[in-house]
Amino acid sequence: MTYRIIPAIMSGGAGTRLWPASTPDKPKQFHALGGAGTMIQETAARVRGNAGDLAFGDPIILANAAHADLIEAQLAEIGVTPAAIVLEPVGRNTAALGALAAGIAREIDPEALVLLLAADHVIADVAGFHSVVARAAPIARERIVTFGITPSRPEIGYGYIKRGDGLTDGVYAIDAFKEKPNLETAQAYVDDGGYSWNSGMFFFAPDVLLREFEASADIRDAALASLQRAARAGARIALDADAFAAVRSSPLDMAVMEKTSFGAVAPADFGWADVGAWDEIWRLADKDDAGNATAGDVITLDANNNLLRTNGVTLAVAGVEDLVVVAEGDIVVILPRARAQDVKKLLELAKARRG
Amino acid sequence: MTYRIIPAIMSGGAGTRLWPASTPDKPKQFHALGGAGTMIQETAARVRGNAGDLAFGDPIILANAAHADLIEAQLAEIGVTPAAIVLEPVGRNTAALGALAAGIAREIDPEALVLLLAADHVIADVAGFHSVVARAAPIARERIVTFGITPSRPEIGYGYIKRGDGLTDGVYAIDAFKEKPNLETAQAYVDDGGYSWNSGMFFFAPDVLLREFEASADIRDAALASLQRAARAGARIALDADAFAAVRSSPLDMAVMEKTSFGAVAPADFGWADVGAWDEIWRLADKDDAGNATAGDVITLDANNNLLRTNGVTLAVAGVEDLVVVAEGDIVVILPRARAQDVKKLLELAKARRG
Repeated sequence: MTYRIIPAIMSGGAGTRLWPASTPDKPKQFHALGGAGTMIQETAARVRGNAGDLAFGDPIILANAAHADLIEAQLAEIGVTPAAIVLEPVGRNTAALGALAAGIAREIDPEALVLLLAADHVIADVAGFHSVVARAAPIARERIVTFGITPSRPEIGYGYIKRGDGLTDGVYAIDAFKEKPNLETAQAYVDDGGYSWNSGMFFFAPDVLLREFEASADIRDAALASLQRAARAGARIALDADAFAAVRSSPLDMAVMEKTSFGAVAPADFGWADVGAWDEIWRLADKDDAGNATAGDVITLDANNNLLRTNGVTLAVAGVEDLVVVAEGDIVVILPRARAQDVKKLLELAKARRG
Repeated sequence: MTYRIIPAIMSGGAGTRLWPASTPDKPKQFHALGGAGTMIQETAARVRGNAGDLAFGDPIILANAAHADLIEAQLAEIGVTPAAIVLEPVGRNTAALGALAAGIAREIDPEALVLLLAADHVIADVAGFHSVVARAAPIARERIVTFGITPSRPEIGYGYIKRGDGLTDGVYAIDAFKEKPNLETAQAYVDDGGYSWNSGMFFFAPDVLLREFEASADIRDAALASLQRAARAGARIALDADAFAAVRSSPLDMAVMEKTSFGAVAPADFGWADVGAWDEIWRLADKDDAGNATAGDVITLDANNNLLRTNGVTLAVAGVEDLVVVAEGDIVVILPRARAQDVKKLLELAKARRG
């Protein structure tokens, strides 16, 4: 049995926690932050061609209108031709994107399933990912499947999903969505074993998702209206600005998943990470014998456990430990790994400086 | 009584301990390393015009031939016109330079005294410097005066001079020159009170110095022969390459001062430093409230006691302490202040990398 799947890749966000690499002009998904390709390239490469029972079609990309050229260029580099590049004039969160992906997928192939992914997630075990998708595919015809990541630590930065009754082997009904917990609660979730991290990836039949938008019909209808009035040129679909601006901004979890009785969760453990900050880049990266993760022209001497990245200048580093050093263009950021979150503050200072 | 003085500034060395700022093409004397101007500019500005009884003439510059344009440009910026720029085809140490300075000064004004200085020394108290020079001037007609720096710490990186009998107020005969000591000996010198650091600056009448080259007459004669056969164009005096290459390479201390009975030492305390490494630059620099010495486009957040210098890229630094960060062109060096000497090793690694 073959499942035709249309990947829908959400290239949103302008994360400031990976400054100076990540900027509004070129957010993190357009950078190589560990893999050989950029994050959006790695994401697209993960869902192409055939893998067992899965037959992936050309992807739909949902993106900031300002990034259209960058997306086409980066995907062309790896030989991926998007079926559609949906250009958002403003950001309206993932519920609108889910409705748009379903609407466009229905045009392309109403029988295909949609696999809605973020462009900036890391998945270390691609084969494991494919086998979870394959296991979830039969359920995804009837229900909206989320991928729940088996927690490796009591992370307080993610939401959690509590599984309900088993539906098939390895796929469960959803008992409850849980907001980002405090540490104590997170530890209780980990100890319980019945909770997964909410990865924000979804797998569904377009008609099922659109039907289950019942409780948030305004979002679906406004999103589809903006698609109806979009300007199309080749693969590019420029949403009507006024119509899309009128869409209510809400996460798909809240608008649909927490309300439908047709949800499901597929617990999974395929080396997933939502790369939020430089210390996480270091944690996920390949390292040399001294624990340094380097990229670009880097010279080290008695330096240990540092993240040292440059796309231009040469970094010559001696005798330091546990630092993040990131040189991007004409900016060099230096701070301890343990304070990686402080890049946001440095960025604010830099903005203030430049007026 | 007015003393006519011809400054002779030795722009030698290609120190690697201040890499990446200091390079063979542009050694440290051509960089601003604390003062408003570059070190050679600060040196020249210190000995211009009149100061009390001192009347400084245009300086003689003794330099690597490769730096002629740089010297003219930097001195022109501060309105200094050299009387001569002596271009050395190879380095032959300070004895040869002393003989050359004396030879050229004799041409310019045989009655003037020569003040032989290094282009890369820091002198914080210029008025104090002038008053020591003025105090030494009467003796400098008869003897070769060295300036001995009152030691502020048991430094093992400098040679020491033991003073002998007093000659005039504040000027002494020389009892002995001492090689760089170990720490115990250095401490004994400091405790004794009769020892000064050997600053490598000299003050003399040209005829006296040339006469006292007796024991090293070969150096004097070969240096003057290379001057005789030099190609002159404007202020530039390009020494004859073969003739100058034949000069024996020796420090003026060893070739003359340790042998003559016409030496003298003027102990002094005018904030002198021979800036050898980045930690010393930090020590000498003005600092902000957090102890950071910064130059160029630098942003700091909770960062303390760092030296942060850039002539190009923006440095954004948070949460680090006691670091040296120097960005020069397309190279950024990062290391603890306490390991500032390791820039030499990093430079070797960088050279090896670049083949």
